[in-house]
Amino acid sequence: MSAADLTAVLLAKHLRYDFDRPENRLNDHLVFSKGHASPLLYSLYRAAGAISERELLSFRRLGSPFEGHPTPKIPWVEVATGSLGQGLPCAVGMALAAKYLDRVPSRVWVLCGDGEMAEGSIWEAFGAASHAALDNLTAIVDINRLGQSAETALGWDTAAYRRRAEAFGWHAIEIDGHDVEQIDRAYEEAVATEGRPVAILAKTLKGKGVRSVENRNGFHGKPLDDPAAALAELGGQRDLRVTPSPPPLGPEPYRFASVATPLPRWQLGEEVATRRAFGEALGALGRANGRIIALDGEVGNSTYLSVFAEQHPQRHFEIYIAEQQLIGTAVGLQVSGWIPFAATFAAFLSRAYDFIRMAAISRANIKLVGSHCGVSIGEDGPSQMGLQDVAALRVVNGSTVLYPCCANQTAQLLAAMTEQPGVVYLRTTRSATPVLYGPEESFAIGGARVLRSSEEDELTVVAAGITVHEALAAASELAGDGMSVRVIDLYSVKPVDRQALLAAAEETRAILTVEDHYAEGGIGDAVLEALATAQPHPPVEKLAVRELPGSGRSAELLAQAGIDRTSIAQAARALHAHAAGR
Amino acid sequence: MSAADLTAVLLAKHLRYDFDRPENRLNDHLVFSKGHASPLLYSLYRAAGAISERELLSFRRLGSPFEGHPTPKIPWVEVATGSLGQGLPCAVGMALAAKYLDRVPSRVWVLCGDGEMAEGSIWEAFGAASHAALDNLTAIVDINRLGQSAETALGWDTAAYRRRAEAFGWHAIEIDGHDVEQIDRAYEEAVATEGRPVAILAKTLKGKGVRSVENRNGFHGKPLDDPAAALAELGGQRDLRVTPSPPPLGPEPYRFASVATPLPRWQLGEEVATRRAFGEALGALGRANGRIIALDGEVGNSTYLSVFAEQHPQRHFEIYIAEQQLIGTAVGLQVSGWIPFAATFAAFLSRAYDFIRMAAISRANIKLVGSHCGVSIGEDGPSQMGLQDVAALRVVNGSTVLYPCCANQTAQLLAAMTEQPGVVYLRTTRSATPVLYGPEESFAIGGARVLRSSEEDELTVVAAGITVHEALAAASELAGDGMSVRVIDLYSVKPVDRQALLAAAEETRAILTVEDHYAEGGIGDAVLEALATAQPHPPVEKLAVRELPGSGRSAELLAQAGIDRTSIAQAARALHAHAAGR
Repeated sequence: MSAADLTAVLLAKHLRYDFDRPENRLNDHLVFSKGHASPLLYSLYRAAGAISERELLSFRRLGSPFEGHPTPKIPWVEVATGSLGQGLPCAVGMALAAKYLDRVPSRVWVLCGDGEMAEGSIWEAFGAASHAALDNLTAIVDINRLGQSAETALGWDTAAYRRRAEAFGWHAIEIDGHDVEQIDRAYEEAVATEGRPVAILAKTLKGKGVRSVENRNGFHGKPLDDPAAALAELGGQRDLRVTPSPPPLGPEPYRFASVATPLPRWQLGEEVATRRAFGEALGALGRANGRIIALDGEVGNSTYLSVFAEQHPQRHFEIYIAEQQLIGTAVGLQVSGWIPFAATFAAFLSRAYDFIRMAAISRANIKLVGSHCGVSIGEDGPSQMGLQDVAALRVVNGSTVLYPCCANQTAQLLAAMTEQPGVVYLRTTRSATPVLYGPEESFAIGGARVLRSSEEDELTVVAAGITVHEALAAASELAGDGMSVRVIDLYSVKPVDRQALLAAAEETRAILTVEDHYAEGGIGDAVLEALATAQPHPPVEKLAVRELPGSGRSAELLAQAGIDRTSIAQAARALHAHAAGR
Repeated sequence: MSAADLTAVLLAKHLRYDFDRPENRLNDHLVFSKGHASPLLYSLYRAAGAISERELLSFRRLGSPFEGHPTPKIPWVEVATGSLGQGLPCAVGMALAAKYLDRVPSRVWVLCGDGEMAEGSIWEAFGAASHAALDNLTAIVDINRLGQSAETALGWDTAAYRRRAEAFGWHAIEIDGHDVEQIDRAYEEAVATEGRPVAILAKTLKGKGVRSVENRNGFHGKPLDDPAAALAELGGQRDLRVTPSPPPLGPEPYRFASVATPLPRWQLGEEVATRRAFGEALGALGRANGRIIALDGEVGNSTYLSVFAEQHPQRHFEIYIAEQQLIGTAVGLQVSGWIPFAATFAAFLSRAYDFIRMAAISRANIKLVGSHCGVSIGEDGPSQMGLQDVAALRVVNGSTVLYPCCANQTAQLLAAMTEQPGVVYLRTTRSATPVLYGPEESFAIGGARVLRSSEEDELTVVAAGITVHEALAAASELAGDGMSVRVIDLYSVKPVDRQALLAAAEETRAILTVEDHYAEGGIGDAVLEALATAQPHPPVEKLAVRELPGSGRSAELLAQAGIDRTSIAQAARALHAHAAGR
């Protein structure tokens, strides 16, 4: 109710939107960053004639797309909101796409709550939007003073909000959010403003129009005691209809050329870091597919996203050290069909974990690349080590998790992930490792590679990434002792190749998993899940990082964590003795 | 080198610190939010005579506490940094503790990088610090213009930083960061400023003093080509010594009274939400232990932290909708021995995941409570449901994860978590559930409760929280069919009661786990890990949320996800038939 006037004026006069063709790239975008205002959003759809009364009244019922918070199950919703402070960052991605990629004149309108202005992600978005001069973006801040449980820190101090917006490079307008003429003028001013985004700081009343709740704390998210009286007070039941203007006819969205380009190739045995292979392969894929966009968390020289940036400067965006905005931009870009690859250290993707969680609810098609995984990064210490990323990404609904061990495999998996829908994560290694697979080998998502096997295999080592190399070395050592060991490269951690694991469980006496990651929720757990109902079920032992690591050389830290070749060989001997003895 | 002058003046004249007594609560605090400036920090320790040349030169070597980024392995480091944008939020917690809890005149000095000013968490901290009028906090921003890979978005525009700081309610001072007199005056002004925190915006040169790298891009984190020449250029090898002033004698830190208080008690069968039991029990624990502090993410009326707030207003802090600051404050408070409980929706703890990860590296003693877990919350939809929190928290190094199913158990576990060091997480349920355990029962961390068992048990159901109730109902139904089922309440998900699970694996034919959480990394995986080497190993089937849920009633959503009583009974019958048939 606090934002009803703001959105009514928008729908009636300024939003250019064709409800019959939500896929029209010339439509404006409307994002409810305050997702809990969903009843208002759905009422706009009703007013526009896009949904029926019956649909509206299915609100929050099982099976209805009109959920408690908006999601893209509804054709006119582009990103899920409901975790506050995320709609605006995603909208920045949409505005960036419209202005610099699609190159269309559509505008992005975002309704923000005042409570969510306390979220840091909002200020990442403010910084990113002014840096990119997004004059096609308008944030309408519904300053109703009251949060869920109490008054906000700034209350009705719209001037304080204005100062913050201006300091972050935005044009800012303070208005009375219930004065339709002021609202109308503010929107006109927003549309006319060039070179910078616009924030409209609207002083409003929560529960506006119904005396029993208006401007009173304690009614957040609660049904009214007397809805009939409220309805009467609001003017009685009406059947308002508003037809928004369709978008103007405009240019076809811009397309970058796609030119068939082979993936880079590396020679067997060559020493190449998978992070470098990622950068080079993404450069080639970018040439092959003009829809690929690279988003950088100001670590392009570490992730090797810099290679793509040099080759495709128009499709590379520097998001700086603002990982929430990094993912928000990705989610916004994919709305219009771009394929964003966002890269930073695996450890720092944890900074944007809620954004990744929400991206899954948006059914967003985003590609994430985390470099510097595990203790094997060496001297920089634990703050820089991705040691929880596999667990965190596996539990994202509908996600895919890949972890290559060699340069050619990285290139192949990168090509596969471009085609794989949803949240797809690729984990890369800092240090150079030998190329194990020829450039002609292909790798399917959901597969695994048996790197070493014989009929005499007594035990299976399941590894991925850096530990594949350690596992192979251990297997050689054990072969010298007369013990035959199967080695599986589990490069697709989710989905996992259950058949390869079941075969190993059947054909060998014990399974040893080894991962440069903490022990919970990672590769070992993926193996355990695959074998959960296997009968007989051989003993499975999990080698993983269990103590907080420190600085040191890569090999020293692998040894200290008990996941290097020597530790694997030792654990294999012990496990084999245990399994044989039973 | 860009911040050497800034910190030299601080150490020589303004920092009040006794290196021999780092535990002295009257010491000032020095936080390097730009943790990658660790060589400078360790050089300060050397200049103060706190460490030897040999210790300094152990930098980044295996086993040395002088790691690539500072951690509290070093006695003078209070919080780990190295994930940018976290030192200042933690420092806000320290300043809050000094001013409002310990009530001592110590100051908090924070060295920030300019690159990290793009992190939203920095602006959460700016907002929180001015809201709390933290005039004992000074942020020194080292504006050297150059990030890791490129120039920052704002370059040397110190005025832009000043405007942002001022808009967020800080006093701001622009200086030349290599002019020692300007630096000195700025610190004096900072100390003299009352009622608001102070930001010193210092224009500096990266690599200051060594021509080959000074103000040049491309040398971030790289050793110098000619260190001998650089040393000569900087004035040659010297043995500088600086003795900082000790802190003034001052009052003993304030203590809140602790008064022996029983935990609240509930009657068997009473319907109480565990979130409500949490709030009431925390109120009682707060009376019993004056060191307990409550931190609220502006959802106190949902988490029931509001109960504590009413009873102990001086020990309750409203952090608003800024979850990174919520955890940053907690980490800062525990530095001086307070026991912070930070509560929000389980889903929104994901917003602070990097802070929780870093808290583990800080070995911080923080207590986290996540409400509204799982699909059982009902109509609000997936954005509000904690469905990945158990996985995310299990993989945090050294963490504890608890998930009670009834009010009395919640109170007991809450008391236990107060004593349990490290990152401890308690998951609570939105809806009311019957009290299952009498108030006299005690629950140890690492335990489990066999709620139903007999010698004829054919299958075990392992559940926790809301699914315990569903499992018990399913067991009753199955008992009616003549099938005896054991039910284990796995309230301690990490550490897990391996013995109880091994006994179940030995004594029953199959195990069914059931959790209101996604399938990866949660309760089912904790069970699989516990049984990984069990021989024989019965089949384990995992019931968990596998599809993206929507809105609906609690019972509808539990049924749709296949984790309600009917689904459990059905799965138990099928699993039992499978296990019997093998």
